Amino acid sequence: MKISSADLFMKVRERKPLVHQITNFVTVNDCANATLAIGGSPVMTSSPREVADMVKLANALVLNFGTIDDKALEAMEIAGKTANALDIPVILDPVGVGATSYRTEQVKELLSKVTFQIIRGNASEILSMMGGDTVTRGVDSGELAISNAELAAQAANELNSIIVVSGAKDAVSDGKHTSIIDNGNLLLTNVTGTGCMSTALIGAFSGVTDDFYSAAIAGISTMSISGELAASTLQKDEGTGTFRVRLIDAISRMDKEIWMHEVKLSEKVAN
Amino acid sequence: MKISSADLFMKVRERKPLVHQITNFVTVNDCANATLAIGGSPVMTSSPREVADMVKLANALVLNFGTIDDKALEAMEIAGKTANALDIPVILDPVGVGATSYRTEQVKELLSKVTFQIIRGNASEILSMMGGDTVTRGVDSGELAISNAELAAQAANELNSIIVVSGAKDAVSDGKHTSIIDNGNLLLTNVTGTGCMSTALIGAFSGVTDDFYSAAIAGISTMSISGELAASTLQKDEGTGTFRVRLIDAISRMDKEIWMHEVKLSEKVAN
Amino acid sequence: MKISSADLFMKVRERKPLVHQITNFVTVNDCANATLAIGGSPVMTSSPREVADMVKLANALVLNFGTIDDKALEAMEIAGKTANALDIPVILDPVGVGATSYRTEQVKELLSKVTFQIIRGNASEILSMMGGDTVTRGVDSGELAISNAELAAQAANELNSIIVVSGAKDAVSDGKHTSIIDNGNLLLTNVTGTGCMSTALIGAFSGVTDDFYSAAIAGISTMSISGELAASTLQKDEGTGTFRVRLIDAISRMDKEIWMHEVKLSEKVAN
Repeated sequence: MKISSADLFMKVRERKPLVHQITNFVTVNDCANATLAIGGSPVMTSSPREVADMVKLANALVLNFGTIDDKALEAMEIAGKTANALDIPVILDPVGVGATSYRTEQVKELLSKVTFQIIRGNASEILSMMGGDTVTRGVDSGELAISNAELAAQAANELNSIIVVSGAKDAVSDGKHTSIIDNGNLLLTNVTGTGCMSTALIGAFSGVTDDFYSAAIAGISTMSISGELAASTLQKDEGTGTFRVRLIDAISRMDKEIWMHEVKLSEKVAN
Repeated sequence: MKISSADLFMKVRERKPLVHQITNFVTVNDCANATLAIGGSPVMTSSPREVADMVKLANALVLNFGTIDDKALEAMEIAGKTANALDIPVILDPVGVGATSYRTEQVKELLSKVTFQIIRGNASEILSMMGGDTVTRGVDSGELAISNAELAAQAANELNSIIVVSGAKDAVSDGKHTSIIDNGNLLLTNVTGTGCMSTALIGAFSGVTDDFYSAAIAGISTMSISGELAASTLQKDEGTGTFRVRLIDAISRMDKEIWMHEVKLSEKVAN
Repeated sequence: MKISSADLFMKVRERKPLVHQITNFVTVNDCANATLAIGGSPVMTSSPREVADMVKLANALVLNFGTIDDKALEAMEIAGKTANALDIPVILDPVGVGATSYRTEQVKELLSKVTFQIIRGNASEILSMMGGDTVTRGVDSGELAISNAELAAQAANELNSIIVVSGAKDAVSDGKHTSIIDNGNLLLTNVTGTGCMSTALIGAFSGVTDDFYSAAIAGISTMSISGELAASTLQKDEGTGTFRVRLIDAISRMDKEIWMHEVKLSEKVAN
């Protein structure tokens, strides 16, 4: 799967996939710039009046729960169903699910109406999307008793989607195969939008292949490696403002060679 | 016309025109910073409850279709009519017009209600704003059969507005005079918001003169020249994140001397 | 009060207060990044459907009038009342109040329903929040006849809140004690969002102490000092784009030692 992901960097720059993103108003600009930096073409419209028409032109659809409200949910349902009907991949970023009952209920509602090829969240968000039984099995007093890899595999089976769990180590699973990416830097948590941008990158890669497992690996690892590269350039007196600029620099320079050299990837296959 | 545009740089910094912008939520921050960088003062409110009051304080009004929805359209109509009544220049950025029928219909509706002194878009957007006959005349199987300069001149006559067509070469036309600006850098297409920021700059210049043709030239050329200057500073290992920062740097440093030295401007006058 | 403020830098990084911000769509990304840079954790949801649930998790609530509309006001009232009931500090940024009657009326309505521990604005905004009599007393043909310090003290007594007046010299007053901070740089006015980010920083500090007067001083002075530090790093050919990046760098590096070394703070106590 390493080679499959590696080959996507050239493809995304050649094909410039249109990535329709119905996302939040906090990191929408970052997501657009991350999409452009990797070679995709972003469009961020969220009016229920036109999302069906727009998604028809797209190669992938990203739905992000960052600042969800009823109007955005209406647009997500329309765009998601249209994408499903046209075999356009749909990627979900369940930002903040679990924090309020509104988010938790609405994401379940959306899951019942739209099929997602890939879902990316942190461990807490992915856990919140799973049933209560799972939580009882997997969580001990708020501390995770299972690794991101185990969580991703379990969630992939329960949610019938490729699952990406972001964290110190990222995990990507289709339920049978689980990849672990051991890249990243803590500074990624000191800048807003790095999670959302990861999902945007996954969206861009999903727009140029049917191998969504490799697309998910390419997207999440691009962010983690870019975080490492950006952090390594910081000089004395520089901080999170410069880190954020260098992060986009690194994404815009990412290619097969850099990725193959930097990625720390391992895979487990379930029996 | 070169001198007329050149003299606007000092004027805009002296008078700090208030530029009311009803724009999209993707690049709104970039537009505010570009407006400040050239010396203007941005205000971005879009509530139908207050736009009439706000535009009365403004020296120019910019309407941008990036993430258009029914509420924004309501605000645009109110603000646009108020600006027209008060002789405040109104500038339109028809982002994405042509991509969905909603955009194409709504921009026609707005054109029937509000008079625009300047319209700036790429060739595809400007073509979509013109009638079907024009498209038949000017477009061959999706490939442009006419140059940006010809398109700008034709659109200026049909739409009764100064037209700016952005591209590898930018064109500005009032229907009789057409200026061609041969500046720019491909990196401008790898950062979101460079088109929107161009329109914001045109708005700022329009706020300090009645010569909207020169204002349009000053605005679009400031972006294209700043793109060149920003690209020329990039070091090995820098990418689109740094380019975006240097672009704002260049706008904030632009003045008559730099502009006169850098601009590649030619003009045609129709017979 | 200097030591009280100085000790907050370590506290905010240790406790990572959750700062719920219902704010504008222009500078929301900047506010999130400023909050992260100082050590807080931002959440920016504004749906009336979930703000009550979200604010219960928060250590402070910031309400910002930048792009106010009826929906945001509904969310602000719900969140503000919930925060008041739970003794979560509420900070108001009355952006643009005075510019339109809508803003001026709505801020009065909100003041009648929600108690604010801290209000931060520029002199014009704070004056607009006070009664007509005050304006008659304090303003002469648009020119302020009183200093920021006098205005802050007067407003603190009238509005029953700690008042921060931003300007060339910032003033913080609880009505009896008034601190003056003589830091800052003019470039802070050439970048959008520096006022909003100041309020976000005040929110972060308010989330780790009950001494809101010291929290307000820590927040506003962090921005003014960071502006000085950022400006001091600028090289020839750099402009407001780089300044903005270095501003976040400086916030992310701020600590007790830097602050104690840089701050120019004096206090007056009313008789």
